[in-house]
Amino acid sequence: MSYQEPIYDVAKLGHAELLTPKFDESLRFFTEVYGLDVVATEGDSAYLRAWGDHDLTSLKLTASHQAGLGHVGWRAMSPQALERRVAALEAYGIQGRWIDGDVGHGKAYRFTGIGGHEMELYFESEKYRAPEGKQAYLPNQPQKYHGRGVAVERIDHINLLTRDVVEMRTFAAETLGFKLREHLIPGGQGEEVGAWMSLMNKAHDLAITKEPAAGASGRLHHLAYYASTREEVLRAAEIFMENDVFIEFGPAKHSRTQGFFLYVYEPGGNRIEVFAGGFHIFEPDWEPVTWGTEVKGRSTAWGLECPPSFHEHATPLL
Amino acid sequence: MSYQEPIYDVAKLGHAELLTPKFDESLRFFTEVYGLDVVATEGDSAYLRAWGDHDLTSLKLTASHQAGLGHVGWRAMSPQALERRVAALEAYGIQGRWIDGDVGHGKAYRFTGIGGHEMELYFESEKYRAPEGKQAYLPNQPQKYHGRGVAVERIDHINLLTRDVVEMRTFAAETLGFKLREHLIPGGQGEEVGAWMSLMNKAHDLAITKEPAAGASGRLHHLAYYASTREEVLRAAEIFMENDVFIEFGPAKHSRTQGFFLYVYEPGGNRIEVFAGGFHIFEPDWEPVTWGTEVKGRSTAWGLECPPSFHEHATPLL
Amino acid sequence: MSYQEPIYDVAKLGHAELLTPKFDESLRFFTEVYGLDVVATEGDSAYLRAWGDHDLTSLKLTASHQAGLGHVGWRAMSPQALERRVAALEAYGIQGRWIDGDVGHGKAYRFTGIGGHEMELYFESEKYRAPEGKQAYLPNQPQKYHGRGVAVERIDHINLLTRDVVEMRTFAAETLGFKLREHLIPGGQGEEVGAWMSLMNKAHDLAITKEPAAGASGRLHHLAYYASTREEVLRAAEIFMENDVFIEFGPAKHSRTQGFFLYVYEPGGNRIEVFAGGFHIFEPDWEPVTWGTEVKGRSTAWGLECPPSFHEHATPLL
Amino acid sequence: MSYQEPIYDVAKLGHAELLTPKFDESLRFFTEVYGLDVVATEGDSAYLRAWGDHDLTSLKLTASHQAGLGHVGWRAMSPQALERRVAALEAYGIQGRWIDGDVGHGKAYRFTGIGGHEMELYFESEKYRAPEGKQAYLPNQPQKYHGRGVAVERIDHINLLTRDVVEMRTFAAETLGFKLREHLIPGGQGEEVGAWMSLMNKAHDLAITKEPAAGASGRLHHLAYYASTREEVLRAAEIFMENDVFIEFGPAKHSRTQGFFLYVYEPGGNRIEVFAGGFHIFEPDWEPVTWGTEVKGRSTAWGLECPPSFHEHATPLL
Repeated sequence: MSYQEPIYDVAKLGHAELLTPKFDESLRFFTEVYGLDVVATEGDSAYLRAWGDHDLTSLKLTASHQAGLGHVGWRAMSPQALERRVAALEAYGIQGRWIDGDVGHGKAYRFTGIGGHEMELYFESEKYRAPEGKQAYLPNQPQKYHGRGVAVERIDHINLLTRDVVEMRTFAAETLGFKLREHLIPGGQGEEVGAWMSLMNKAHDLAITKEPAAGASGRLHHLAYYASTREEVLRAAEIFMENDVFIEFGPAKHSRTQGFFLYVYEPGGNRIEVFAGGFHIFEPDWEPVTWGTEVKGRSTAWGLECPPSFHEHATPLL
Repeated sequence: MSYQEPIYDVAKLGHAELLTPKFDESLRFFTEVYGLDVVATEGDSAYLRAWGDHDLTSLKLTASHQAGLGHVGWRAMSPQALERRVAALEAYGIQGRWIDGDVGHGKAYRFTGIGGHEMELYFESEKYRAPEGKQAYLPNQPQKYHGRGVAVERIDHINLLTRDVVEMRTFAAETLGFKLREHLIPGGQGEEVGAWMSLMNKAHDLAITKEPAAGASGRLHHLAYYASTREEVLRAAEIFMENDVFIEFGPAKHSRTQGFFLYVYEPGGNRIEVFAGGFHIFEPDWEPVTWGTEVKGRSTAWGLECPPSFHEHATPLL
Repeated sequence: MSYQEPIYDVAKLGHAELLTPKFDESLRFFTEVYGLDVVATEGDSAYLRAWGDHDLTSLKLTASHQAGLGHVGWRAMSPQALERRVAALEAYGIQGRWIDGDVGHGKAYRFTGIGGHEMELYFESEKYRAPEGKQAYLPNQPQKYHGRGVAVERIDHINLLTRDVVEMRTFAAETLGFKLREHLIPGGQGEEVGAWMSLMNKAHDLAITKEPAAGASGRLHHLAYYASTREEVLRAAEIFMENDVFIEFGPAKHSRTQGFFLYVYEPGGNRIEVFAGGFHIFEPDWEPVTWGTEVKGRSTAWGLECPPSFHEHATPLL
Repeated sequence: MSYQEPIYDVAKLGHAELLTPKFDESLRFFTEVYGLDVVATEGDSAYLRAWGDHDLTSLKLTASHQAGLGHVGWRAMSPQALERRVAALEAYGIQGRWIDGDVGHGKAYRFTGIGGHEMELYFESEKYRAPEGKQAYLPNQPQKYHGRGVAVERIDHINLLTRDVVEMRTFAAETLGFKLREHLIPGGQGEEVGAWMSLMNKAHDLAITKEPAAGASGRLHHLAYYASTREEVLRAAEIFMENDVFIEFGPAKHSRTQGFFLYVYEPGGNRIEVFAGGFHIFEPDWEPVTWGTEVKGRSTAWGLECPPSFHEHATPLL
């Protein structure tokens, strides 16, 4: 029987490292406005977490001369799965290196993905153990809900730019086991400009979109955390408004993923999303949805048009 | 390396068959009030679906002399996974039989689970293809959102009663690969009375709770469909109120799963839930949460007490 | 003591009459999609109501050669208040006439307001008495919540265009007792282009905006019904999307009134709003808020820009 | 013509004074958990406000040997209306006295209402002018939305206990112009045990319920602030849970007023509500709704039963 079985060797988006040229302002944004907590600081970096993250940290914020992605960390399902995926990466021609780990996780295989983004794959991860005063009332919740700022719940997904979407999504599928859920080919033919991929039941853990700038590599479109409800996204808009955060796009409903979204720029320039809802995929034989048009109601479900900046702004700035 | 890898051979709760002694009234409830659509009728059964189910049907409603569970269908990840799980069942001492299939799915391995519930495992499943007039605006949505009645989105989970919770959850783990997420041992010692298990990222696909009646077997506690938001659950309460449906419990927030719930009895007597939210589990090494107490705020998050009927009513009635 | 006491002689926006060149399609929109019920038909008109309207009818839909406003009906507080307001109108130089009434209300003083809109003022109004099958579970609710389509709750406000906003709002204040709540003078000086006025606690029952077309008179910008929650507005967007209704603007949050809005065109061409929230005014000495700018975040709270059509489209079309 | 015109001489519930034997803990509750801000402290009292209150202060919290109501302040429509209402009170046999005012308002007529509650009536009220850093983005909002704790929006209503409900509501109607909206006579005959009255468009500003204890006088059932949405009430439950605040009842939907409610006890013992929604009354000839039964679904809309404490607990404790 020749049915191709899906691979479940990578469990989730574990963390991302964002670079910022305005470290103090970015840190204030992520803590006071976005609602993350700092769990550690080391060198030029702060390590942050959302109240609903079960791991110790999901965001590493690092001072740098420019904004952008430091790296993105994917957590493997098991030590064995980690070995299998490293073998697959190397078979694909990727040559990475093992590092000892970082705050929150153990040894990791660090490599540059197709598209030019620094990535790492690891299994050993430190669970968050809430100290006195931060313990949640419910023992299945890692930390007390604090309600501060937007109070996003947990890390959700990342969107990376690349010159060749098909090449990068093929790499992600073949080495890490990402499943293609939806992709966009404007006009229904020609170049694919977006792909939405996931590891398990979410509609996407990784979005890949077309890099508009020739010569650019490894750029970040946005990093998204999850808000528990659509109402929390509306509340986020209110909080961003009151805190003079630039709202680029939303709140509105995505066509792809069906998520309810809101995009802002953090002070360092990185685009940050608050994301809620989104459909789930339970079908092992999901047929990727091909989006062929960008007519009304296809870019966003209810017809809101994308601002041009959404296709142009990325970090690092060029 | 001795790390036990998780098994992902079963993808999801595919469908359930409910028995009802009041077929016409039950059918009216599920269509007009709960908001499902009929896709087929055959013999004494109607096959229904929610607008967000990607498979053809998720509920088989069958006329019978009494209420209860007909059977529950689990969809395997692949043909190979189906074979592996059948082998595991048989190695566990379960002797089932292959059936040719039913409306919506192909050949299935039918067996009686520990706990006395009829179950089936299958891979081939018919995707829903919406006819003209029911096609959704968004191509990643299987059917138009109609907004009729409660308009639940998709099948979510099932709760089954058994005399020995540990025995049944061990069986579910070892044969089908269910992961134990949370369990309840009142007072922190003694008999386990509840277990919440899932296949992939949900907090539960299957709940197992202690059968209170000696000698009873194979009974149903409840079947749940997913509502897209908490507000939809509140709207459901309004619709049940206006349609004289008995509301047993909720809307409120569960402690286990953190879902926002509402329980009613359909006219045939089966308990039906509308469920929204719930936390998701992305950790491959999730440590099951042991709930040891039933003090305030532990049975439900915000302190609402369970009505006694919730621990007593099940179908078939005794 | 010379404190000017507020006048409470007009209670509410009672009803509006909309004209449509596509009567059947408009009627289908208002019943199946917007969620109103027909209570009577007479001649070229249908009389409709929302489930939460306490009066018999709030919308008269009339077949006509073009779209637009037929008339708007304001309900007086008492027979005495009606007499006082008619006297005030006549003292202001308005010469109307008494009509015997219409479906849903008794004798009315019909006149043409400053701005050229047909208006009527009346006191006697027929309460809705729900027939068997439409009676609400709660006796303080006039009709069962049916959940059909958008299922708007009740009539809310109307926005009328006029060439001279100050002239029309002065007329509304001096004759009918409308209170000025907010007004808009772009750049902080020069011509006033918008005024929001209310009768009691709402932020507005009547909005007056600048007519862009020279020579036009008596045109309608939009009619709005109230949705119970912001989530109902989001649900409305979903329903409009699925029913191919053109969404012009929203869902988003207004700066003025702070309401959560969604604008569509009904098939006849009239702009229709679904409105939720909005702040309430309990202060008898409210100081009108002067909006002087149209910078980001001022046209809508979270920065969404007005589409040009919002300033141009009105009915009748020119 | 003998139609009785409604009186609009009292505009709103302006403020309440609560007494607490645990001042510091109560103050922490009202600021950190409930989300009010302190605007002044004087003697044994702190003066607080919600972010959406247009007046300077809506709550005076005063240290005392026991919990309970200090007084309730009603704001008149105008100086003339104040004089008329004082005359009506005195004609009714109430003998009050003028005081010079307090933080937030000018001279007031202080009196003891039927039922034994201290009340005051005043017109001059200080508007809140937000200092730098607290100014809202929208100029029609008195203060920045801070999102801290429950972040209630504004004062809403108060519920007072009395031995004779009809006597007290008659007094409220005849002297202050409260309109009877709904009342409760269990079994449809016999003693009236509850009355819901309002001044303008709200379903209630004042609820009057039967004092269960013989000899008790002037007791408080609860004070309520408004939350902007039902979702904010659910969020409040989460915040109360995480902060170990005792949740007595809710979240659920009231039958009377149709509001979405949540009751807790603040540390001093006073019952505090978070209230959202509620229907509005625009009809000048509203017929009071008589509730005759307390069967399922009548005490609360969706069937949740009142805990016994809800009929027994009041402050001061006996």
